Amino acid sequence: MEEAKETSKSALKKAEKQAKMAAAKAEKAAKQAALPVIGGKKTDDIIGITVSKSENFSQWYQEVVLKAELIEYYTEISGFFIMRPNTMHIWNVIKKWFQERIEGLGVEETNFPMFLSQKSLEKEKSHVEGFAPELAWVTKAGDKDLEVPVAVRPTSEAVMYPYYSKWIRSHRDLPLRLNQWNSVVRWEAKQTTPFLRAREFLWQEGHTAHLTEKDAGVEVLQILEFYAGVYEQLLAVPVVRGKKTEEEKFAGGYYTTTVEGYIPSNGRGIQGATSHCLGQNFSKMFDITVEDPAEKGKHIHVWQNSWGLSTRVIGVMVMIHGDDKGLVLPPRIAKIQTILIPVGLTAKMTAEDKEKHLVQFEELYQVIKKAGIRADVDLRDGYTPAWKFNDWELKGVPLRIEFGPKDAAKDVISYARRDTGEKGTIPISELTTKIPELLEIIQQDMYNKAEASFREHRVKITKWDEVVPALDAKNVVIIPHCLFPECEKRIKKLTEGHEEPDTPEGQKAPSMGMKSLCIPFDQPEGLVKGETKCLNPECTRLAEEWCMFGRSY
Amino acid sequence: MEEAKETSKSALKKAEKQAKMAAAKAEKAAKQAALPVIGGKKTDDIIGITVSKSENFSQWYQEVVLKAELIEYYTEISGFFIMRPNTMHIWNVIKKWFQERIEGLGVEETNFPMFLSQKSLEKEKSHVEGFAPELAWVTKAGDKDLEVPVAVRPTSEAVMYPYYSKWIRSHRDLPLRLNQWNSVVRWEAKQTTPFLRAREFLWQEGHTAHLTEKDAGVEVLQILEFYAGVYEQLLAVPVVRGKKTEEEKFAGGYYTTTVEGYIPSNGRGIQGATSHCLGQNFSKMFDITVEDPAEKGKHIHVWQNSWGLSTRVIGVMVMIHGDDKGLVLPPRIAKIQTILIPVGLTAKMTAEDKEKHLVQFEELYQVIKKAGIRADVDLRDGYTPAWKFNDWELKGVPLRIEFGPKDAAKDVISYARRDTGEKGTIPISELTTKIPELLEIIQQDMYNKAEASFREHRVKITKWDEVVPALDAKNVVIIPHCLFPECEKRIKKLTEGHEEPDTPEGQKAPSMGMKSLCIPFDQPEGLVKGETKCLNPECTRLAEEWCMFGRSY
Repeated sequence: MEEAKETSKSALKKAEKQAKMAAAKAEKAAKQAALPVIGGKKTDDIIGITVSKSENFSQWYQEVVLKAELIEYYTEISGFFIMRPNTMHIWNVIKKWFQERIEGLGVEETNFPMFLSQKSLEKEKSHVEGFAPELAWVTKAGDKDLEVPVAVRPTSEAVMYPYYSKWIRSHRDLPLRLNQWNSVVRWEAKQTTPFLRAREFLWQEGHTAHLTEKDAGVEVLQILEFYAGVYEQLLAVPVVRGKKTEEEKFAGGYYTTTVEGYIPSNGRGIQGATSHCLGQNFSKMFDITVEDPAEKGKHIHVWQNSWGLSTRVIGVMVMIHGDDKGLVLPPRIAKIQTILIPVGLTAKMTAEDKEKHLVQFEELYQVIKKAGIRADVDLRDGYTPAWKFNDWELKGVPLRIEFGPKDAAKDVISYARRDTGEKGTIPISELTTKIPELLEIIQQDMYNKAEASFREHRVKITKWDEVVPALDAKNVVIIPHCLFPECEKRIKKLTEGHEEPDTPEGQKAPSMGMKSLCIPFDQPEGLVKGETKCLNPECTRLAEEWCMFGRSY
Repeated sequence: MEEAKETSKSALKKAEKQAKMAAAKAEKAAKQAALPVIGGKKTDDIIGITVSKSENFSQWYQEVVLKAELIEYYTEISGFFIMRPNTMHIWNVIKKWFQERIEGLGVEETNFPMFLSQKSLEKEKSHVEGFAPELAWVTKAGDKDLEVPVAVRPTSEAVMYPYYSKWIRSHRDLPLRLNQWNSVVRWEAKQTTPFLRAREFLWQEGHTAHLTEKDAGVEVLQILEFYAGVYEQLLAVPVVRGKKTEEEKFAGGYYTTTVEGYIPSNGRGIQGATSHCLGQNFSKMFDITVEDPAEKGKHIHVWQNSWGLSTRVIGVMVMIHGDDKGLVLPPRIAKIQTILIPVGLTAKMTAEDKEKHLVQFEELYQVIKKAGIRADVDLRDGYTPAWKFNDWELKGVPLRIEFGPKDAAKDVISYARRDTGEKGTIPISELTTKIPELLEIIQQDMYNKAEASFREHRVKITKWDEVVPALDAKNVVIIPHCLFPECEKRIKKLTEGHEEPDTPEGQKAPSMGMKSLCIPFDQPEGLVKGETKCLNPECTRLAEEWCMFGRSY
């Protein structure tokens, strides 16, 4: 079923897309034909990604995370994923970077049990309601039923705060800032996706207590800026900083700040990481008070924050940078930043010449490693250089270095960038300075490309009729909004159901309605308070702020 | 009830013990009398440890881990403990040290799900039998029953090995070496103890696959040596390296190597950490094979190892080094290595002189910190220096530095060692070299003291009648043994039931029988194979090896 009211513009786009896809398929077929048949290796090893990113984004993503060896599906229990060493390297880089910064703020590390009692959980009502449907309950130990079942933590507010009440006795105990690196379980009923929506994921959760709202507020933004840094500086992913609406904030919290990302392939927004001010809601429920240093005898409830960043960040990075050849990793987080491959060792060469060349190759490798570059060599027998190129492109290694007798004769190495495919040479004498420079250029170029794409697809809209076409053209929209939850719910409904095909072959699904992503801190011009109306045509209220809406994960 | 056949020697020891205890109590009472009353602070904050280590070891331990802020009891669910920042610092030092070393061996990091399916679990029969009684079963998600319940991992052999079968296709994929840092759950029915026996604990679990038994065996011992290093080099705890008997080895494994510790206060042995060779048992069950590189077409099952070190190590360290004042930390793992306390600021001094002194105090602190020493200052108002001394002694800080006007006049600082109480001065000009030297001396002295104690209480015995008296005198014993499981079980029975009072006040419990701790790699002289008999008087077999037995955790 074709959508009748499709504009001629989007029809044109679709035709272009189909043409590109056909070209991509042809290219892939050609490439596959060129691949050597390797005895004993299974075909899925050498074929690479079987769909193009634009053709079937969802399958493309699943193939990339699997074939680039980030993830293995845990077939024993659905919704769970194994994180392989390539993933753990990225997570550990992020961990180290973030840990250093929160230590600088005086945050200390802790480790609370993974189980939660019903009693603690029920203390904050809207909090328990938010998580109840996803709790995994342990009801048996060995062959005995537990007297009182316990839940696996979906987050640790209710695990930790009874002890904050015990540990915080005086304002001198404030601020109390604790963080833990752990895994949490949320037994999602919805379809799971590696990294983005899994029933268990790794994260850090920080939980802090402060004397005043102001102190808490300062920290909320410091942490949010670190989260933005993880995306922008490590993962080369641009984000928009902002505040969540009442409708979208953390259950039981006071306000939620967020960094929001954007997936160009489907035009969806995606929540990056959130830093919450919990206000005094939890401190009232869990009885966390101190004597007011300004007024003897008066007890005040502490101001609390909680903030978390999860392995979801890795999924966002994969979706944004990957291409039809597979994963593309930003150099700062890549386990292998450059792969060295010997080339041009033809059958005509003498064994002695080959040996001599490989000795020089090994020397170059040692020089590069000693310069602090994370490098590896591919000396596998029985594989052609072309096969190896494909294999390392699939795995996303940022820079490929080729070294053959012709390079040796010119005292250079040849390189190919993973992100752009650009090729060039570097004099051997300059390797230790030029390679790090090139890696930094790749890092910046990747960020700049993604940033331009997000900027281009973040559209300020002041006419309601332009909203859905903008979404269909893979934009997120920034609109004047009253910030009322009921209006937001209505907007979701009003923008639902426009059918947009997932693939040009005709798999279609009703498109999702848009929801609010955040109220950007960086507000555009043009909203006059007390004058500008909320964009929802059914809403009679005035607009409070520009609010970013979009289809989203 | 006094034990009738008590020897005069042990009666003498008991009298000495009681005298010491009385003295300790008197000292404590005197100390408490000297403590200032701090407004609003609860008494348990300032009283310190209320029992002596020799008087009631079990209560002493529980108070130390709590009051030194290593642990908080998780009262919501019994058998679980909260690890506080002082603990996490120690664990992170261990983690970094060990991680660097296994990375050097080529071990990569991974993260598998925390849940286990019944199906995988049942593949290795003796393995599942070993863990079944302690499995925590998730049977519900939200308010829905799971179709198939899942267990929280007690260890990850059965979680991981189905994927080893998938990932290992050729001998070129070997060795495969993966490790994860995680928590596991073993729902113990026995009494739990912080660090030593908890229903959830942190550990690392390494799982590796090799082509040959020899390769696997080399790694088993490399890892065991790292475990010994964690104890000896970081925690200042001596261990005996050896092999477990058949009776005590890992369920489903081929052989188990171990480092065994010793707790002087009760004379018990304690398993430190284990490195297992699993042989081919699991690879046969999980179908992990490669083609023999030496013989085309022939498939061989890989040789596997698994090895784990847990937060138990911290409990062992606390038990060995702590004293009646509280925790004593080895400098290399202490979060705060030295605490600086201003002293001698009397009421007679002018405000200006005090200010001047504190400025110099702060300068010294900065100099010490810049030298890379983990230092902190205690400038709390309303507490006397004596109170602060007690507080930091309770928390185990290795070195206290006092700085008063008298010290300033002589250009020195005064110090007190936590381990020995020894006092001295250091010229200010030599702080940055002398403090690190002193910390290293403390580290070495702590190790040497513990090592001497273990050596003294590891008694080689060749007469059966001497076994129980040796155990009663808080020794572990090394005896000639046939290594047969049934003999070992019988020895446990034969050495059971000798009542030994836990406390001189008369709380008594039947003493436990001894079990084998390990077959030490370092075998004493004097066992003639084919001649020396197994020490068990009821056993008719010949002795195979010297085996270390003891009452144990």
